[in-house]
Amino acid sequence: MSLGMSLDPPERLLMGPGPSNPDPLVTEALAKPIVGHLDPYFLELMDDTMELLRRLFETRNPHTIPMSGTGSSAIETMILNLVEPGDRWVVGVIGYFGERLVEMARRAGAAVTVLDVPPGEVISPDDMRRAVSRTRAVGIAMVHAETSTGACQPLDGIARIAREHDALIIADCVTSLGGMEVNVDGWGLDAAASCSQKCVGAPPGMGPVTLGERAMAAIARRRQKPATWYFDLNLVFEYWADGSRQRAFHHTAPISSIYGFHEALRLIDREGLEARFKRHRAAHEHLVERLAGLGMELFTPARHRLPMLNVVRIPDGVDDVRVRAALLRQGIEIGGGFGPLKGKVWRIGLMGVNADLERVDLLVDALEEHLKAARR
Amino acid sequence: MSLGMSLDPPERLLMGPGPSNPDPLVTEALAKPIVGHLDPYFLELMDDTMELLRRLFETRNPHTIPMSGTGSSAIETMILNLVEPGDRWVVGVIGYFGERLVEMARRAGAAVTVLDVPPGEVISPDDMRRAVSRTRAVGIAMVHAETSTGACQPLDGIARIAREHDALIIADCVTSLGGMEVNVDGWGLDAAASCSQKCVGAPPGMGPVTLGERAMAAIARRRQKPATWYFDLNLVFEYWADGSRQRAFHHTAPISSIYGFHEALRLIDREGLEARFKRHRAAHEHLVERLAGLGMELFTPARHRLPMLNVVRIPDGVDDVRVRAALLRQGIEIGGGFGPLKGKVWRIGLMGVNADLERVDLLVDALEEHLKAARR
Repeated sequence: MSLGMSLDPPERLLMGPGPSNPDPLVTEALAKPIVGHLDPYFLELMDDTMELLRRLFETRNPHTIPMSGTGSSAIETMILNLVEPGDRWVVGVIGYFGERLVEMARRAGAAVTVLDVPPGEVISPDDMRRAVSRTRAVGIAMVHAETSTGACQPLDGIARIAREHDALIIADCVTSLGGMEVNVDGWGLDAAASCSQKCVGAPPGMGPVTLGERAMAAIARRRQKPATWYFDLNLVFEYWADGSRQRAFHHTAPISSIYGFHEALRLIDREGLEARFKRHRAAHEHLVERLAGLGMELFTPARHRLPMLNVVRIPDGVDDVRVRAALLRQGIEIGGGFGPLKGKVWRIGLMGVNADLERVDLLVDALEEHLKAARR
Repeated sequence: MSLGMSLDPPERLLMGPGPSNPDPLVTEALAKPIVGHLDPYFLELMDDTMELLRRLFETRNPHTIPMSGTGSSAIETMILNLVEPGDRWVVGVIGYFGERLVEMARRAGAAVTVLDVPPGEVISPDDMRRAVSRTRAVGIAMVHAETSTGACQPLDGIARIAREHDALIIADCVTSLGGMEVNVDGWGLDAAASCSQKCVGAPPGMGPVTLGERAMAAIARRRQKPATWYFDLNLVFEYWADGSRQRAFHHTAPISSIYGFHEALRLIDREGLEARFKRHRAAHEHLVERLAGLGMELFTPARHRLPMLNVVRIPDGVDDVRVRAALLRQGIEIGGGFGPLKGKVWRIGLMGVNADLERVDLLVDALEEHLKAARR
């Protein structure tokens, strides 16, 4: 590409940790005519988007919206609004994205106690109970689906502990939402946040977030405003409202991105959550079986495995970067390892439309060729 | 619209304060195939976007990128990175968006001195010199093009004062960029921020920002990290780089939005800055003339008027909301007044492709009909 040339991006099969490929209907929605952010049509679309997002988060929380930023911005929104300087929080760390929660919470002024486990493992409710009791924490932050290790952290038991101790529990559901159950009300999460570009199946750029009554009460009790104006939920909800109030201008909503996000939510709703989760699970099982046929295994213990993010051990003697580059030349993207797992694993995403048996075959067939070549 | 229905937004001629209509080529770019945020193609596109953005900001600052949020997020990025708790800042307030700078700076911990003028007026260099001398401020924040009053605040004189006093000067160029000169290096601005959806001509969702050497040195001198992780420029630039370093993952960039933004920048570059600014100026002059023919006048004194945002007095006896609703039924959006000007003025935007004589005629012809009807 050179300056002044029009865009001509290559077609990719995106089987890394995200973004995934959007459904063609989502791509079409991005290019629909733009209306103003206070246009009656757009205000209806906002209501519709909120309702579809509630269904996906399995919640009745009125305060359920996409933030105008990527998934990371939705995580930071939870933290900057719910943490006040000096608050004691316990952060469960099962990988890289847990460490990021620690960093964000500390920047927001929290006194953070870190509870961690080796990569691939998850945190037990008993360990969390002890940590919360000992520190008298007012909040717990956890990653639900840890993209760096492929492990799924069960949250229902931890949420019960939070309630027993009158602490908040907030969850990073960036990788899980849209590909497996995220039952905000059923589990008792006070807030959860995610992204648009993984299992939800829209382009990156929106940060879905939901907050329940206890979280909203904590915001109402704040002694000082959050350091951020852009992510201040009191202001953001004056625009998005909760079905009961007039809308007031805050910032200009990203119209086209919300078109795409709405269309992705609509497709999820049409497929049905159960069918969609089953499809992600089936693609995962097929991948594991096909990889086993190549003598390859997953890094993550079977009992904790995520369906949509598969962390796979790189066979001995195989060059990580070379194989990934060969796949990309063929139009297929997979991800490399993170931190301590760099060079040791690949991360294979089966997200949204890519949670599909034929696409798994396409990838594994290609991988098989390149592994043969690498060993020759 | 009802839940589960596909999108079908109406066609609008967007002549309010933004968003404006994107060029069809920009809309097409949004729907191009998505690649990963570390794909070699995308990394080239990032370099290209930075270079085109430098040309638009008339700067050689290596640190010139679109933030992953709307224009407001770019403003907040400047403030959260450049203000440290306890710092003394002078904020020039010529309208609503100046007040927003005050609010953001206070949240970031600044001790703010407000220098304000009545709506429609701008701040004189002499008044600013006194305020900075008296407070020994370390920074000045100003709005260049005040969307609430239609006034243009000259910045070159103020920037000289900042240098004389070894203070930073940062500017909100949300409404000006792409429609009139924003000469970052020529004027000596230390940082400037804007949006994507007004005169730049892309959909809302990106927040262009540029920082010069003095601003980057101030960031390097910080005693503590900013409260935000998402907008922390040290981290964001590890991904965007400055042409000299390896790229490291921070957050997943909003690929499709950057496609659209890049295409808009490319079209600006092709048109040429001078021709583009002239086109905006011509559309403005035509509007003023046509409105005069209807006996209407602008609120803003002629010597301070912005070309792309025209604040027009609503004639006596005319119902603000009714006329705007009638225009919208016809597919034309204009904006209402803000704060003290609510109900007294309309805000007519001539931005990007809408800075066009025929479109001005379309709007004024329609307005003429509705004014007649309103008086009947």
